[in-house]
Amino acid sequence: MSSLQSGHTGPVLSTARIETLTDGVFAIVMTLLILDIKVPHFAEGLPKGAVEQNLLANLYAQRFNLLAYALSFVILGVLWVGHHNQFYFIKRADRTLLWINILFLMCVAFIPFSAGLLAAYNDIQTAVVLYGANLIVAGVVLYFHWWYGTRDHRLVEVEIEPQVMRNVTRRILTPPVAYLLAIAFSFISPLLSIALYVLVPVAYILPARIDRVWIRRHIHPHGEAEVEAPRR
Amino acid sequence: MSSLQSGHTGPVLSTARIETLTDGVFAIVMTLLILDIKVPHFAEGLPKGAVEQNLLANLYAQRFNLLAYALSFVILGVLWVGHHNQFYFIKRADRTLLWINILFLMCVAFIPFSAGLLAAYNDIQTAVVLYGANLIVAGVVLYFHWWYGTRDHRLVEVEIEPQVMRNVTRRILTPPVAYLLAIAFSFISPLLSIALYVLVPVAYILPARIDRVWIRRHIHPHGEAEVEAPRR
Amino acid sequence: MSSLQSGHTGPVLSTARIETLTDGVFAIVMTLLILDIKVPHFAEGLPKGAVEQNLLANLYAQRFNLLAYALSFVILGVLWVGHHNQFYFIKRADRTLLWINILFLMCVAFIPFSAGLLAAYNDIQTAVVLYGANLIVAGVVLYFHWWYGTRDHRLVEVEIEPQVMRNVTRRILTPPVAYLLAIAFSFISPLLSIALYVLVPVAYILPARIDRVWIRRHIHPHGEAEVEAPRR
Amino acid sequence: MSSLQSGHTGPVLSTARIETLTDGVFAIVMTLLILDIKVPHFAEGLPKGAVEQNLLANLYAQRFNLLAYALSFVILGVLWVGHHNQFYFIKRADRTLLWINILFLMCVAFIPFSAGLLAAYNDIQTAVVLYGANLIVAGVVLYFHWWYGTRDHRLVEVEIEPQVMRNVTRRILTPPVAYLLAIAFSFISPLLSIALYVLVPVAYILPARIDRVWIRRHIHPHGEAEVEAPRR
Repeated sequence: MSSLQSGHTGPVLSTARIETLTDGVFAIVMTLLILDIKVPHFAEGLPKGAVEQNLLANLYAQRFNLLAYALSFVILGVLWVGHHNQFYFIKRADRTLLWINILFLMCVAFIPFSAGLLAAYNDIQTAVVLYGANLIVAGVVLYFHWWYGTRDHRLVEVEIEPQVMRNVTRRILTPPVAYLLAIAFSFISPLLSIALYVLVPVAYILPARIDRVWIRRHIHPHGEAEVEAPRR
Repeated sequence: MSSLQSGHTGPVLSTARIETLTDGVFAIVMTLLILDIKVPHFAEGLPKGAVEQNLLANLYAQRFNLLAYALSFVILGVLWVGHHNQFYFIKRADRTLLWINILFLMCVAFIPFSAGLLAAYNDIQTAVVLYGANLIVAGVVLYFHWWYGTRDHRLVEVEIEPQVMRNVTRRILTPPVAYLLAIAFSFISPLLSIALYVLVPVAYILPARIDRVWIRRHIHPHGEAEVEAPRR
Repeated sequence: MSSLQSGHTGPVLSTARIETLTDGVFAIVMTLLILDIKVPHFAEGLPKGAVEQNLLANLYAQRFNLLAYALSFVILGVLWVGHHNQFYFIKRADRTLLWINILFLMCVAFIPFSAGLLAAYNDIQTAVVLYGANLIVAGVVLYFHWWYGTRDHRLVEVEIEPQVMRNVTRRILTPPVAYLLAIAFSFISPLLSIALYVLVPVAYILPARIDRVWIRRHIHPHGEAEVEAPRR
Repeated sequence: MSSLQSGHTGPVLSTARIETLTDGVFAIVMTLLILDIKVPHFAEGLPKGAVEQNLLANLYAQRFNLLAYALSFVILGVLWVGHHNQFYFIKRADRTLLWINILFLMCVAFIPFSAGLLAAYNDIQTAVVLYGANLIVAGVVLYFHWWYGTRDHRLVEVEIEPQVMRNVTRRILTPPVAYLLAIAFSFISPLLSIALYVLVPVAYILPARIDRVWIRRHIHPHGEAEVEAPRR
């Protein structure tokens, strides 16, 4: 918690509060998404059977809101995991990093609006493009955060191998590029764009196992033994 | 706070930010529940006595919303305590654990909607089933989190005795099974299901004393002396 | 962060996550209070002077909402400071403490509703009594938290002098007693009750200096020297 | 996390929970700002082209809300960075500091309302003045927090050089003074005031590099070497 804990070396602010603020914004944005799914209200005095039927019809009518909820939750998850992983390397903060982070949060906090727009107007190009643009800007700022944080080893404490750098960079920049493609697809059909918005996070959860391996191999050469419980 | 603090062993991410994000989502979801209870507005110019009577009538009319508030708060409490207790054993995180956790939070953040539905339509089977299904999925994901986190001692640091494992597993899986039963009951009467939704968390708070005993006995064999203040 | 950090003694859960969850709930409840103050909307095409006048009139009409905002914020502050101070002594948690805390949070998260009711119906006894009852229950649960946490030195790590115990107990129980009096006053006039709701937190901020003195005297007998910066 | 970690010296409360509560309030306030930008709803059965056009027109109509979102986010960023930086020096808390902080949060949590008012009535003096007044009070309380925290070295652990004190004081007090000027300008034109509201945070992000230098020079005389990664 102490901003002095990094030992009076270099830019002296700790990253603890950046992480707390960011986790807070993500937690609220994730939770606000549910507010786009509304509890319906029907006329008083309807017979029970009719209410039952109306309720099912209403839930079906909100299927795109349910999809947008799940999709945006997972996309926020990708951004959060990416941010989380950067702070495995970035151990100190300076004022510029604080501001890049605030800019990143401004993009993240915008997602409930652009996701709400997408849910309401999933066949309208403007809504589809705005959602993609929001994600692209968020991704680019996240990359800029990584670039600034690791440049000249200013804010990192461990040596990062060039191959790890390349891997992380590719991992951060792939989604924005895919979303740019999705925006291009929107000129053919907005549904094509949405398909791509769904595919990207799915692809991001799957190769998790693979990329964990290179993290261990390149930074922790003695990592093989740790599968055993250390305190045994 | 540092993801390096686990000493460069095994999957290197700390669990601190998972816990912060989770606590944030729980805090917001718990607080959003109150938004289902509305401050009523009456016509201007009513005499004071009429307003007083209208207000009492309105509070009475919202009694199911008040019950849903208390019920969902306690059910969220059960999930939060369960999540909290898992991290007594799970000390490190990898990408898969992050994603299981995000999936768990997606279920938790859905509760304000399904609880709102239950409060508005407590005698309609669809609402009752959806609420139960929401809780079942949350419970199953929480179990999966436990299973993944403790499997092969990958992410734990202390040896867990088989009996403790069995106890914790039973403790996590009992509510989903009870909620499944509640859904079955909804074919007889939705009120029966709600009764079971209420009973489960009550049963969970009561035996707290008992299960604390086995935690102490099986992990801390010298635990008997600790009732005395250690710094005395 | 680690629940093991208390050194395998006694009830082994750390208090860190209780504190994070509680701070989260307080932060959200404090912020939700502002939603009771609404940005007004006037008919289109009004001349600028009329809008200016309407806006001022609207702000004046919302003066009780502004008062309720400030009042509830400060009352939440009193509860938060009280909770915060308890964890100066309480250093470990068990399941029962987690649940007392969740019950406390259930009372705290209810305040936006009862404060909204008070703002809208400040001259109606039901609203005034409900607000007071909410604060009384919150205060009593907070006392119960203190009683359970310090009983038999189970969850504390420092010896607490009997005089400190008496002081803290009196400090926690005074507001609920005052609010009980306020409820009794509501039978004469609801405005008298509100006056007492306002007076209690004011009285709580003022004697801060005095009670800090006894904290230092009774626990830190060598506290006099610390006014000098220790690292000098 | 432990309030005992400051080593039993002086005012014994740690600053950890102040920081958690503050980060929580900032995270929520930042995220609530987006709720001022609304997803529009059009009549059913409109042709796709008309919806597309209506949507663009609606986004254009909300341009002041978008500006208010970005502006308030950055202004909150300035306040958060200022608060964050103070705790680089302030390492302990007492009851008075807790209450100054709660007063500061009361001003911060008010910003969603005054920003919403500004977005809706950007050409009305009352709205412009209220926004400025909110920021001025927040800034003055933040200065008071700094003054109280550093006075007589009560709550700080490092010696602060007079020049650093002067620099920080000037840095905290400049925005309130500029906002006072903006309020004066509102008598000429509300748009002039808004221009100044926008200019201040922009000016605050830019000179970041410069003020980082004096922080390093005056506190860490050996700071020049830290550009190299310490663990190399």
